[in-house]
Amino acid sequence: MKLFSYFRSSAAWRVRIALAYKGIPHGTVPVHLVRDGGQQHSESYRELNPQGLVPVLEDDGQAFAQSLAIIEYLEETHPEPPLLPPDFAGRARVRQMALGIACDIHPLQNLRVLDYLRGPLAQGDGPVADWVRHWIAEGFRPLEELARRHGDGRTHLYGGSVTMADVCLAPQMYNARRWHLDLKPYSALVAIDAHLMTLPAFSTTRPEAQADAE
Amino acid sequence: MKLFSYFRSSAAWRVRIALAYKGIPHGTVPVHLVRDGGQQHSESYRELNPQGLVPVLEDDGQAFAQSLAIIEYLEETHPEPPLLPPDFAGRARVRQMALGIACDIHPLQNLRVLDYLRGPLAQGDGPVADWVRHWIAEGFRPLEELARRHGDGRTHLYGGSVTMADVCLAPQMYNARRWHLDLKPYSALVAIDAHLMTLPAFSTTRPEAQADAE
Repeated sequence: MKLFSYFRSSAAWRVRIALAYKGIPHGTVPVHLVRDGGQQHSESYRELNPQGLVPVLEDDGQAFAQSLAIIEYLEETHPEPPLLPPDFAGRARVRQMALGIACDIHPLQNLRVLDYLRGPLAQGDGPVADWVRHWIAEGFRPLEELARRHGDGRTHLYGGSVTMADVCLAPQMYNARRWHLDLKPYSALVAIDAHLMTLPAFSTTRPEAQADAE
Repeated sequence: MKLFSYFRSSAAWRVRIALAYKGIPHGTVPVHLVRDGGQQHSESYRELNPQGLVPVLEDDGQAFAQSLAIIEYLEETHPEPPLLPPDFAGRARVRQMALGIACDIHPLQNLRVLDYLRGPLAQGDGPVADWVRHWIAEGFRPLEELARRHGDGRTHLYGGSVTMADVCLAPQMYNARRWHLDLKPYSALVAIDAHLMTLPAFSTTRPEAQADAE
C-alpha cells in the first residue's frame, strides 16, 4: 500500500492513524499542498484523485480517495484491531461522530475554502479566523455532549477502545489549537485527545513527526 | 422506525431514498428548518440530535444522526437490496463518491452556512449564489470523471445497480438546479440522475412528494 499524504492535512492524518493502529505496512508519498502552486493539482495526481485532495491510498493497482472511505476499506480488509464496535447501533453511533467532524467541521476550514473566503469573498484574516473557530465550535458542542453520553468522557469518544470517531477527533483538536479556539467548554474532548496522543498510533503519525514536516 | 425529516433537506432525502429502496416500513416526523426559528433548535430535538440537524432516524429506542451513518446502519440491518457492492474495492469506490458529495459539496451550501455568509460575512445574494455554484461545480467535475471511469455513464454512478453514491447524487442534482448551476459539463451525471428519477425509491421520496412540502 502507498499513502499520498501531506503532513498538515487532518484528513491524511486520519488515515495515517488507521494504518498505524492496524499495523499495516505501507509507503508514504508526500504531496505538498502549497509548493509548486499545489502538487495536488498536477495531472498525475488528478489521475489518482480527480478531486485533487489528499489523502489517496493506492492498493492493488487502485487509488482510493476520501479518508473515511479509505478507513472503511482498511476496516474491511484488515479487521483487527477493529475501529468500529461489533453491534449495529454502536457502529452507527461511531460513524455519526466521525461524520460530524468529517462532513460538518473539516470541509469548512479546508485550505481551498479559506482561499475562497480570502479571494472572491474578500475577507481578511480576522473574519476568516472567526469563521474557522465558529464551525469548529458548532461541531465540538454536540460532540462533547455525545462523548459524555456514549463514552467515558476521559479516554475515548465511544466505549472503551479506539474507534473511527477518535481517529477523526485528534486531528481536529490539533486544528482547533492551530486556530486558537478556546477549548475550555470541551473538557471531555480535551481529556480524550490527551489520552489518544499517548498512543503510538496517534503520536507517531502527528504532523510534526512526518518526513515532510516543515 | 421513525424518520425526522424536512422535505427540502437533501441529507434527509438520502435517507428517504434508502428506506424506500430497501422497503423498510417507517413513520415520518416533519421538522421545519425555518418555521418557529427552526424547529431543529428545540430542546426536544437537540435531545435526539445535539447537532440540531436533520435527518434523525429513531430505531429501537435510539436516535441516530448523520445521513451516511444512518444509511450504513440500514445497509447492515437490512442488507437486501444492497446499496454497496460486495467487493472491498467497489465498496471503497462507492463510499468515495458518496463522501465526495456528503463532505465536500453539501455542507458548504447548508442553510446554516449560507446564513453565516449573509450574516457575519455580510455577503449579498449574488456572491452567496456564486459560492454555492462554485462548490457544487468543484464537486461535480471529479464526480463526472469518476462516473465515466467506474459506471456506464448513463444509469448509475458505479456498476449496474443503485448504490449509496446514487442515493447522494439525486438530491445534490436537485439542489444544483435550484441554484441554476449550468449542468452542460456534467452529461453523465445528468443522464444518471434522469434514470434514477424513474425509479420509485427516488421519485416517491422527492421533496415535492412529501407531506410537509410547501
